[in-house]
Amino acid sequence: MIVILKHDVTEDKRDQLIKWFNSQGLGVDVSEGEYQTILGLIGDVLNLDTDMIESLDIVQATRRVTEPYKRCNRKFQPEDTVVKISDVAIGGGNFAIIAGPSSAESEDQVVQIAKSLKQAGASVLTGGAINSKIRTHTIQDQNYKEMAFLEAAKRETGMPLAKEIISVEDIPKYDNVDVMIIGERNMHNYPLLAALGCMDKPVILKRSISATIDELLLSAEYIMAGGNKNIILCERGIRTFADYTKNTFDVSAIPLLKEKTHLPVIADASRSTGLSRLVYPVSLAACAAGADGLIIDVHNDPTSAEKNGGQALSTEFFESLAEDVEKIREVLRK
Amino acid sequence: MIVILKHDVTEDKRDQLIKWFNSQGLGVDVSEGEYQTILGLIGDVLNLDTDMIESLDIVQATRRVTEPYKRCNRKFQPEDTVVKISDVAIGGGNFAIIAGPSSAESEDQVVQIAKSLKQAGASVLTGGAINSKIRTHTIQDQNYKEMAFLEAAKRETGMPLAKEIISVEDIPKYDNVDVMIIGERNMHNYPLLAALGCMDKPVILKRSISATIDELLLSAEYIMAGGNKNIILCERGIRTFADYTKNTFDVSAIPLLKEKTHLPVIADASRSTGLSRLVYPVSLAACAAGADGLIIDVHNDPTSAEKNGGQALSTEFFESLAEDVEKIREVLRK
Amino acid sequence: MIVILKHDVTEDKRDQLIKWFNSQGLGVDVSEGEYQTILGLIGDVLNLDTDMIESLDIVQATRRVTEPYKRCNRKFQPEDTVVKISDVAIGGGNFAIIAGPSSAESEDQVVQIAKSLKQAGASVLTGGAINSKIRTHTIQDQNYKEMAFLEAAKRETGMPLAKEIISVEDIPKYDNVDVMIIGERNMHNYPLLAALGCMDKPVILKRSISATIDELLLSAEYIMAGGNKNIILCERGIRTFADYTKNTFDVSAIPLLKEKTHLPVIADASRSTGLSRLVYPVSLAACAAGADGLIIDVHNDPTSAEKNGGQALSTEFFESLAEDVEKIREVLRK
Amino acid sequence: MIVILKHDVTEDKRDQLIKWFNSQGLGVDVSEGEYQTILGLIGDVLNLDTDMIESLDIVQATRRVTEPYKRCNRKFQPEDTVVKISDVAIGGGNFAIIAGPSSAESEDQVVQIAKSLKQAGASVLTGGAINSKIRTHTIQDQNYKEMAFLEAAKRETGMPLAKEIISVEDIPKYDNVDVMIIGERNMHNYPLLAALGCMDKPVILKRSISATIDELLLSAEYIMAGGNKNIILCERGIRTFADYTKNTFDVSAIPLLKEKTHLPVIADASRSTGLSRLVYPVSLAACAAGADGLIIDVHNDPTSAEKNGGQALSTEFFESLAEDVEKIREVLRK
Repeated sequence: MIVILKHDVTEDKRDQLIKWFNSQGLGVDVSEGEYQTILGLIGDVLNLDTDMIESLDIVQATRRVTEPYKRCNRKFQPEDTVVKISDVAIGGGNFAIIAGPSSAESEDQVVQIAKSLKQAGASVLTGGAINSKIRTHTIQDQNYKEMAFLEAAKRETGMPLAKEIISVEDIPKYDNVDVMIIGERNMHNYPLLAALGCMDKPVILKRSISATIDELLLSAEYIMAGGNKNIILCERGIRTFADYTKNTFDVSAIPLLKEKTHLPVIADASRSTGLSRLVYPVSLAACAAGADGLIIDVHNDPTSAEKNGGQALSTEFFESLAEDVEKIREVLRK
Repeated sequence: MIVILKHDVTEDKRDQLIKWFNSQGLGVDVSEGEYQTILGLIGDVLNLDTDMIESLDIVQATRRVTEPYKRCNRKFQPEDTVVKISDVAIGGGNFAIIAGPSSAESEDQVVQIAKSLKQAGASVLTGGAINSKIRTHTIQDQNYKEMAFLEAAKRETGMPLAKEIISVEDIPKYDNVDVMIIGERNMHNYPLLAALGCMDKPVILKRSISATIDELLLSAEYIMAGGNKNIILCERGIRTFADYTKNTFDVSAIPLLKEKTHLPVIADASRSTGLSRLVYPVSLAACAAGADGLIIDVHNDPTSAEKNGGQALSTEFFESLAEDVEKIREVLRK
Repeated sequence: MIVILKHDVTEDKRDQLIKWFNSQGLGVDVSEGEYQTILGLIGDVLNLDTDMIESLDIVQATRRVTEPYKRCNRKFQPEDTVVKISDVAIGGGNFAIIAGPSSAESEDQVVQIAKSLKQAGASVLTGGAINSKIRTHTIQDQNYKEMAFLEAAKRETGMPLAKEIISVEDIPKYDNVDVMIIGERNMHNYPLLAALGCMDKPVILKRSISATIDELLLSAEYIMAGGNKNIILCERGIRTFADYTKNTFDVSAIPLLKEKTHLPVIADASRSTGLSRLVYPVSLAACAAGADGLIIDVHNDPTSAEKNGGQALSTEFFESLAEDVEKIREVLRK
Repeated sequence: MIVILKHDVTEDKRDQLIKWFNSQGLGVDVSEGEYQTILGLIGDVLNLDTDMIESLDIVQATRRVTEPYKRCNRKFQPEDTVVKISDVAIGGGNFAIIAGPSSAESEDQVVQIAKSLKQAGASVLTGGAINSKIRTHTIQDQNYKEMAFLEAAKRETGMPLAKEIISVEDIPKYDNVDVMIIGERNMHNYPLLAALGCMDKPVILKRSISATIDELLLSAEYIMAGGNKNIILCERGIRTFADYTKNTFDVSAIPLLKEKTHLPVIADASRSTGLSRLVYPVSLAACAAGADGLIIDVHNDPTSAEKNGGQALSTEFFESLAEDVEKIREVLRK
């Protein structure tokens, strides 16, 4: 980290600050410019409170020169991490489609959808949606009901299961789930991140709609601090002034993340656009930009779905998308 | 709600849609324009899935004409709600300052700060900060430690206590807390909202940095659905491209919220700007815009604070701010 | 347009407003709901001042139900517009790459780059950059100098020429330019839009980094009002909180624009990301999302470019990109 | 400026880069850390192309440590600049209200409004609005007509005149204007900035809705490079996801700008909120945050204004606002 001092700082005050940094176990490299003195801190600055330092009378600004994360940093692990969801690999050249109905309504429905998804090329089943459109006190009950439908479909098809989790207490109920999804609203839910960090079950960590790339990586870091290295990152749109889509899908985040971290990066076009007719072009775009996988909301009959029907693809439309995704993947593989 | 049909819709398809709306218990008022047919829905449309309707082949767009919230809507309760935090009233002309150290470090320190805050005009004590700068598995332990310091200061000064809560399991430990703070990161934490909705303890609900005003009110609505009407809303900045402050304090949100809801509205300039030297002008601005109260981070020695030192005011600086706040309040009272 | 009245409006005031709308040549369809009365306006509402109407005491809100643009609206012209830049077609299934050096430094350099671009598959030459990094009073002179290099390269290669224009006075100097580029900073420069609207030379209109899709289309409409129908729209990123790229490339805007307008839509990944290593994946993503063309900054030696070197591809890297673009186009054509 | 090299850079490549910086007239201070080597550049780096440097293979990132502007930088001129608009001073403790009708409709109307504004405490007259709601080819004609009404009111009341200018060709027509307003849409209109920079007439430079604070100051710098030092900065809202107001008024920008520059800073609440009922609280907030002046849209009969009626205050409402502004000013003066 670099600390830029104000131009009229006395030598006395400067030395006092340097001593304080030394007392924190940091080396300090002083460089005098025409208008400013700059201190280069040497050592582990990850936990320094830059806001506090910037508030000091004699400091003009601070600048980080190393990323504030280590475990997920590609600098410290150049080779790709490959995450295994049961027998499905993601990352390091392995690509997978995770699909299923946001509106899981009956065992029969989910089993039928799962079968057709599997045939069309999806390798992981997902489903259910936990949102406030469900009335207050039944939100968890509703979730367990959907879980039962998905478990049935897993038994029938053998597909591993991906499911969103919103609370630590639910963990025991997620035994049959093969990869935990942390939704964008829980990217900063520290008790949940900490609990999943102590398990070795894979986790899909979705980027909050207000998170920078560094903040996403810091949440990954927070999970990994518990020992769990099986993290998959997911871009699902950020909040901007653009008003036709629910969120703005940040396609550049995909190559940027793959540059900064060794973790796999997938994309969820259904939840970022909120509009099924955009899921097709945006999913293809995500693949072309280098995504390691996709999450896609698919429903047997979107127009009669009990919730989120607006974002779901029909199973037929999904088949066609899966084919084109495969073709784009081939172009990139050459 | 208004449903705008595409201009080439057949009468048949239109009638089918109308029938479906009727089956949902809604009346439909049809109005034919030159290029479009518009359906006006009459009845309770709060739970209609507009995304799904918009995805229908024959629908061009939908437009809500009533707000998607009822309990907190000023239309249904014109008079201001007054929330009592122990014996401190907020709203309906009552103004209060909630202050204390984000970095609560010892019983002695917190008691001293609390005494000087009380004398300077603060009426509710707050403190502690729950964030990821604390290492993974000690985040909760750290919180309970800070709680003990605050409880001691409450006993000494008689000030009611405001404290952030991040998890349902912590509720039993918050018996001595007089008003629960839901931080911006938990504005969509449904299990937590639901649990606090079943209590009658007051709640300060902070606006998520990515939330629109309607979304904030929907979270308030979600709490109120459980029966708890003692909600105080708090503006604490939104995420924008502006890069000098941590967040952009949305001062217009204060008069807008007071127009749309009968709930009290307060402001937290410490956490929105992240810079102590901006807390003063922005807090005054919030008062001038009509806020019912302020949350302010105050520390006995900000430059040596263990965390968040950059945003904390010194106790001396707080005194001066409290005086000016009072003067601005007088201007508005005239 | 829909006008929603407040719930306690007297019949008298309502009738007065209806009369006023009638006096503006509009029909009014009244629909009474439980809590609100809604007026549906019938006729040409494009020029109604919705802000004024919303400010009326008796009005709660207004909602547009028709788009505020006509000439570029796909509703009124379902078939794609094909714009011809000299003999190069864009739109309606025709795809073209517009490329060249943002940093045009000598006749020789630009001619060499143009030759290699042509061979690699680019069909329109562009170049030069008009920005504040050039010192105040030489910004125009610098531009004319770059123009001369581009004109030479046009003569040598026969490629049509695309060049940014920032001022009405420059029009006479742009005789040799085949398509005028309106940069994002001039999307609201009305005198410039009006002047280009009176010509029949094609125009590439770039989306302002703060413009919604409707605002971009309104600027296109403003040009078309003068008679010029040869407009190509260009997505080049919006300003968001995301901090690693100069702007956030809004990939969803491509399919959305193609849905709303019959005009061709192209993408500029160089200027939106500002980082050459992202130009490749983001350009492929734009193609996969359905773009009708690309603008790409290419330089013979990016690291020694006099300006904007950070965003320019080398000619070798461009060749490889052009090949992959062609393959993605094939996947979509099937 | 600080240049951070990648951690595996060879000494050879490093020395080559240092030589290149030397050839640009810059000194280089090398500091070796555990994972990175950092180069501190000494000398004038204002015109260095950081994007290009960041694109070099061996560079990880660059960080500016000095602000990219000099002439408007408070570091180089600690005392406030006072700008005189005719005999009205703004800045350095001097406060002024600039007011008038965005919808200037007749000589009589504007004269009447001006008289009542003057009496209520406004010191500069403004009016007219140049926007696309006027049809294409009459936008300038309309502007000259409004100018005539304002000139008449200036003659009658003796108030100096503030008027928006959108094009270099209009300058000769602005002889009677005492302060030129550069609207947010022209903050990057370099030919216009350059032309006004060569005059000594005062300029109000409005922040673009997509501009950071540094970008606003760079535009001020660009004008000042021509010699004109009479610049007043104006905050008028930024574009964010917040959807109830036209833009989000960034109240923190006021104290931040006053910290970074010696130029006066004023606020335009009318154009940032677009809603007259918010102009009152937001204008008071701007004053409380330390603004040196206000721009306010006032109309004799807002509901019948020909344009922008939604944002205009009535003259009566303005009087009351001006009184409260004065009281807030007194609180701050103490």
